[in-house]
Amino acid sequence: MERPTLLINYKAYNNAYGKKSIEISKQIEHISQQYPDIEVILCVPAVSISDISKSVSIKVFAQHVDPVTSGAQTGHITAEMLAEAGAVGSLVNHSEMRIGFNDVAESVKQLSSFGLESVVCVDRNELVAPAAMLGATAILVEPPELIGSGISVSSARPEVVINSVAEIKKAGRGLLLVGAGITSLDDAKKSIELGADGVGLASAVMRARDPATKVKELLEGIRIGLT
Amino acid sequence: MERPTLLINYKAYNNAYGKKSIEISKQIEHISQQYPDIEVILCVPAVSISDISKSVSIKVFAQHVDPVTSGAQTGHITAEMLAEAGAVGSLVNHSEMRIGFNDVAESVKQLSSFGLESVVCVDRNELVAPAAMLGATAILVEPPELIGSGISVSSARPEVVINSVAEIKKAGRGLLLVGAGITSLDDAKKSIELGADGVGLASAVMRARDPATKVKELLEGIRIGLT
Amino acid sequence: MERPTLLINYKAYNNAYGKKSIEISKQIEHISQQYPDIEVILCVPAVSISDISKSVSIKVFAQHVDPVTSGAQTGHITAEMLAEAGAVGSLVNHSEMRIGFNDVAESVKQLSSFGLESVVCVDRNELVAPAAMLGATAILVEPPELIGSGISVSSARPEVVINSVAEIKKAGRGLLLVGAGITSLDDAKKSIELGADGVGLASAVMRARDPATKVKELLEGIRIGLT
Amino acid sequence: MERPTLLINYKAYNNAYGKKSIEISKQIEHISQQYPDIEVILCVPAVSISDISKSVSIKVFAQHVDPVTSGAQTGHITAEMLAEAGAVGSLVNHSEMRIGFNDVAESVKQLSSFGLESVVCVDRNELVAPAAMLGATAILVEPPELIGSGISVSSARPEVVINSVAEIKKAGRGLLLVGAGITSLDDAKKSIELGADGVGLASAVMRARDPATKVKELLEGIRIGLT
Repeated sequence: MERPTLLINYKAYNNAYGKKSIEISKQIEHISQQYPDIEVILCVPAVSISDISKSVSIKVFAQHVDPVTSGAQTGHITAEMLAEAGAVGSLVNHSEMRIGFNDVAESVKQLSSFGLESVVCVDRNELVAPAAMLGATAILVEPPELIGSGISVSSARPEVVINSVAEIKKAGRGLLLVGAGITSLDDAKKSIELGADGVGLASAVMRARDPATKVKELLEGIRIGLT
Repeated sequence: MERPTLLINYKAYNNAYGKKSIEISKQIEHISQQYPDIEVILCVPAVSISDISKSVSIKVFAQHVDPVTSGAQTGHITAEMLAEAGAVGSLVNHSEMRIGFNDVAESVKQLSSFGLESVVCVDRNELVAPAAMLGATAILVEPPELIGSGISVSSARPEVVINSVAEIKKAGRGLLLVGAGITSLDDAKKSIELGADGVGLASAVMRARDPATKVKELLEGIRIGLT
Repeated sequence: MERPTLLINYKAYNNAYGKKSIEISKQIEHISQQYPDIEVILCVPAVSISDISKSVSIKVFAQHVDPVTSGAQTGHITAEMLAEAGAVGSLVNHSEMRIGFNDVAESVKQLSSFGLESVVCVDRNELVAPAAMLGATAILVEPPELIGSGISVSSARPEVVINSVAEIKKAGRGLLLVGAGITSLDDAKKSIELGADGVGLASAVMRARDPATKVKELLEGIRIGLT
Repeated sequence: MERPTLLINYKAYNNAYGKKSIEISKQIEHISQQYPDIEVILCVPAVSISDISKSVSIKVFAQHVDPVTSGAQTGHITAEMLAEAGAVGSLVNHSEMRIGFNDVAESVKQLSSFGLESVVCVDRNELVAPAAMLGATAILVEPPELIGSGISVSSARPEVVINSVAEIKKAGRGLLLVGAGITSLDDAKKSIELGADGVGLASAVMRARDPATKVKELLEGIRIGLT
């Protein structure tokens, strides 16, 4: 991953799988080509990884990986599976898919051993440095009370961004993304201005009447924030 | 599902995903065409459903489904996703992916609402009738101590099969599959003779030097057991 | 357990442990002596079982039990521990402490093997008969959307009570309790009139300004409902 | 907590609750009085905290705490409950009771807010510094493959102890305990010599024919290791 980053989490919205997911991915790819300096990442459901990664050249991430290796692991998704299916990374410990303390360490390690990137999600800035020390490619900080609220972390709780940026610098490794309630050009711009390496969001794009236009707005916000 | 059934769980073995999973699925399809009266079901990892279901005409099942509907459900797999990806059913509550009491009811309901079949796995015959009453297409009984042991439920604990068959009859609905330690023609044959509607297995096929030959042996066992 | 039952879940409210929990338990005991035909059950936190059961003669239940036996089970609570501490039963699968499908069967079995009663909580009437078939002493049906709402299941969704009563009769074993939103004499009365063997509640008593008076009101409702 | 520490985890062994737990606790107290410079901690089941803490003056810890506050939390154990019952701390994330990444942070915070100590268990030395940064009073490192093996971490994997001691120094806060397979005077002695602030164990004491003599042996090992 390189900064700046726009990470779009497809969640399990009804355009996150099937034909609609191919369409929306192609639209996002089209728009993102106008912003070659911003890394766009699509976090898609496990069932969609293979089809979407064949359809677009943007980075495709999984939304979750199990901290296990191949074998008798019915229903589990391994890092190796993700790599074979075309993913280049995965979210780890998303607020809707929390995992164990040791499992974060093991997931990051498993992903890394198959050449995959990891974005560890945390709910407080005290967890930024611990996650970075485990070798995560990036940390995504999301205050839980703002997720899906439409009130952005960058405007409502700028200190979370500022403190997390300080934490990641202390750790000396990893990128720092912020999320929760980010919906507008201004939210994205402010996040970058506060020092974040990128922003993460889901509903703002996935439930937008016109997802591609919304992506353009957010990319524009990041671009302005950088200057 | 129709009886008799041979359910093959790919688990997360290293031939369960990627190119190897397409190859093994085609081999199984080829062999199974010689046994048109036996329903063969492949239970594959979520990441493999789309690719495998496009490659073969055998029924493809998921190994797990989350009891949720579309929306803000990062990392979760919904029944609708499975249907879109090409699956026609799912395992529920596998011994390596146990789920909640209420979640079994909800998973079976969600699968059914998208026209998908459900095979609920249980560890004791006391759970056969409760699972059947929840509307499962089939119940797969597997004594936990025999899973992966190489000692088959049909030879070591025939009373589990006999009692479970009695339970499913009492419930008046659902098919009864048995599993755990089934590796040979004789294991499959005996299971059917004891009254089971089918057998479930994983390592015997997935870790066989020649999976197709092993599938043929098991299909032959089922065929003989029926006569 | 004998019908009719008033089951009071202390949850983790701040009067559920320490000195306050002894006081409130004694008050409830005092009131309940005026209603000798109604079985009052206190479901208390694990840490409080020993002290409360020594202080009052009312039945004390745990709020949860782990489906394991004694041994290397750090942090787990076994049925034998509960019996030793003075509990005579336990809730199983409460909506705030859901457990696995197989674990409900195992918990009920473990409790029974130590002479303890079990009240299995379910979120829909389709689960009443399955839970009863597993040998639960009683089933507590609570529509999740009404829990803690102040709108009672008996007034808002009487069909849940009626259908659950029908289900328990079909199963031929177990008592049927109802809960969710029960706060008044009328709620308790109606539940019994609709055929329930008892009612379960928590906040109505635990957060009442005068818990003892609230208990009296509910006991009175049950008494009237029976006549 | 002060170094050196002997932490005894009662787990759910059959002498961890009821009368036997009082007896064994008194025996341990008696022996430990001969070693006033070593801090002995008893980690006991939730149901036993109140009774044991009333019976002995040694520090009593819980084996687990839920990362929640008082309220509608049926079946959960809060830090406040532990404090009221007489505990002065708790294990967090024990290998038999793993919890979430965020939950470790929240548990440590909750314990601290009620004046309780926290011993966070981890399975690898990479997690020592992250756990220490979250404010844990102590970190207990236990290589999972050695737990209950009878082969001690200090003899089989001394590098785990050495590296963990280095990690805790880097973090600049917290004590470093080691565990897994510790059963003898020599195991305890070597652990301390390698730089650990204390040792943790369970079966060696709880399943000993004469627990008090075993505790004396381990205390002696720590004493010698210090000199």
